[in-house]
Amino acid sequence: MSVYTTVSHDSLQHWLQGYALGQLVDFQGIAAGITNTNYFVTTTHGRYVLTLFETLHLDELPYYLSLMSHLAKHGVACPAPIADHSDRFASILAGKPACLVSCLSGGDVSQPSPAQCRAVGEMLAQMHKAGATFPQKMRNPRGPRWWSRTAQQLYPQLPADVAESLREEIQFQDSHRFDHLPSGVIHADLFRDNVLLDGDNISGFIDFYYACNDILLYDVAIAVNDWARRDDGEMDNELARAFLDGYQSERTLTQEEKACWPVMLRAAALRFWVSRLQDLYQPVCGELTYTKDPEAFRHLLATHRHRTEFWLA
Amino acid sequence: MSVYTTVSHDSLQHWLQGYALGQLVDFQGIAAGITNTNYFVTTTHGRYVLTLFETLHLDELPYYLSLMSHLAKHGVACPAPIADHSDRFASILAGKPACLVSCLSGGDVSQPSPAQCRAVGEMLAQMHKAGATFPQKMRNPRGPRWWSRTAQQLYPQLPADVAESLREEIQFQDSHRFDHLPSGVIHADLFRDNVLLDGDNISGFIDFYYACNDILLYDVAIAVNDWARRDDGEMDNELARAFLDGYQSERTLTQEEKACWPVMLRAAALRFWVSRLQDLYQPVCGELTYTKDPEAFRHLLATHRHRTEFWLA
Repeated sequence: MSVYTTVSHDSLQHWLQGYALGQLVDFQGIAAGITNTNYFVTTTHGRYVLTLFETLHLDELPYYLSLMSHLAKHGVACPAPIADHSDRFASILAGKPACLVSCLSGGDVSQPSPAQCRAVGEMLAQMHKAGATFPQKMRNPRGPRWWSRTAQQLYPQLPADVAESLREEIQFQDSHRFDHLPSGVIHADLFRDNVLLDGDNISGFIDFYYACNDILLYDVAIAVNDWARRDDGEMDNELARAFLDGYQSERTLTQEEKACWPVMLRAAALRFWVSRLQDLYQPVCGELTYTKDPEAFRHLLATHRHRTEFWLA
Repeated sequence: MSVYTTVSHDSLQHWLQGYALGQLVDFQGIAAGITNTNYFVTTTHGRYVLTLFETLHLDELPYYLSLMSHLAKHGVACPAPIADHSDRFASILAGKPACLVSCLSGGDVSQPSPAQCRAVGEMLAQMHKAGATFPQKMRNPRGPRWWSRTAQQLYPQLPADVAESLREEIQFQDSHRFDHLPSGVIHADLFRDNVLLDGDNISGFIDFYYACNDILLYDVAIAVNDWARRDDGEMDNELARAFLDGYQSERTLTQEEKACWPVMLRAAALRFWVSRLQDLYQPVCGELTYTKDPEAFRHLLATHRHRTEFWLA
């Protein structure tokens, strides 16, 4: 359940007067989503999604919302934020930073087909290309510096074998540099639950609140680690190939990128392993976190370590 | 028929590589439209409208396309231009300035209902409010200076009674000033064929290529002169009232605006009477003009002159 903040009809109707969207007809809470409160809002002009941000502050939102607006303007499938009469994408509603975005069709899929993986890969490449002209910059707050620091804090709490394995992987990543690879705007969290599909068509990437500037191949690895991972935790070669074929239909990977691919898959797995360990061992008091099992990513890392075929030879 | 410029499959496919819209699936000419060439373009991502500009130059387009983008971003129903990988809304295709915009549903109506007039009025007010934050400015090229100068050139060619009537109306308008009324971005050509309706819902205002900065009430008068005009050339009070009620549901007219309304209806009729006289008596050689009868606006002016009730007492 994701309606943490309740909005009254009167306050929403009043807030909507700041927009060119007509009169409020109906609104209802959306159960999906973990971090924020979401509502479907119907006005005399159409249907929108209202998000009330439970952790992000008002001054942190312009980067993400401007990025979504930029991508939508370039035809990349994602929600388009609506600007109000003061030309802002976000303002305070019910005490929380809030925004309205266009409502997309479709839903997420838990068992994607190769055709769907291909479509997601292709749209991700389009996103990377369209992001090239986005003028704002955002450092990745979940990069190598973050995972090293976080791991240091975690080691005393972790079982010995987990700590050992984590230390090993961080050392391995420390010995690799990706600065020579193409970089740009990345989604950084393109898991299956952050893509709305309508059959095999992408209706939209959602949840851009980890987006930042980083290595493009890292974004591909994050996505492939999820889209091509089977329920048993193993990688599905067919799905991974379909994803990469789709991606390369719009942006061909360089030789340098291909050479880094096996290490990048491990880096992408490490990042989520660390954040899940952090959620489990150092939960933030009062923060609305839905703790997921870190073991899935430890297992994935082990799989990548012993893998010999990487679909990109 | 409005396909003046033929685009080949290969050149369109190549041009589309500059966009994040996937691969070309199909395209076909659109018969509607007078000035420009339009195509429906279907790609693997969706359906768009391609416009090739037959008279406007590439450097004249950014104002209109940025305005449409601004309005769409604010939720005003209009086509959203798609930016290419160089972040431009327009570039050359088949030797002509060309752009892609989102494809809207619906169609135009020749016999609008009061509910439809109300919806158009309301959306026009939303457009006026959303235009307030658009940073670019454009002088109205069809203002009082233009109609006076054009009339001077026309008088020698016009039948004596037409010339007399035109001179009288221009003198009448010259004796009125509207500088004290609210101004902003206006569409300036919101006739019935420039609004797509889906039932009673506005799917979009189109054809923004006369948009400029001018008196907001002038825009309302241009629209009411068309939306509330019956086939017999008389004004339909019910339609006019519905339009103005819709408009005022979002932006209440000031007392100064209400006082100017009868004169403004005449100014709006004069502007189109003069341009139609110009099209008829001074056709531009080689320009693709579909000449409409100027008499309709002369008749409308006469109606307004003798009208005593103006729905805005």
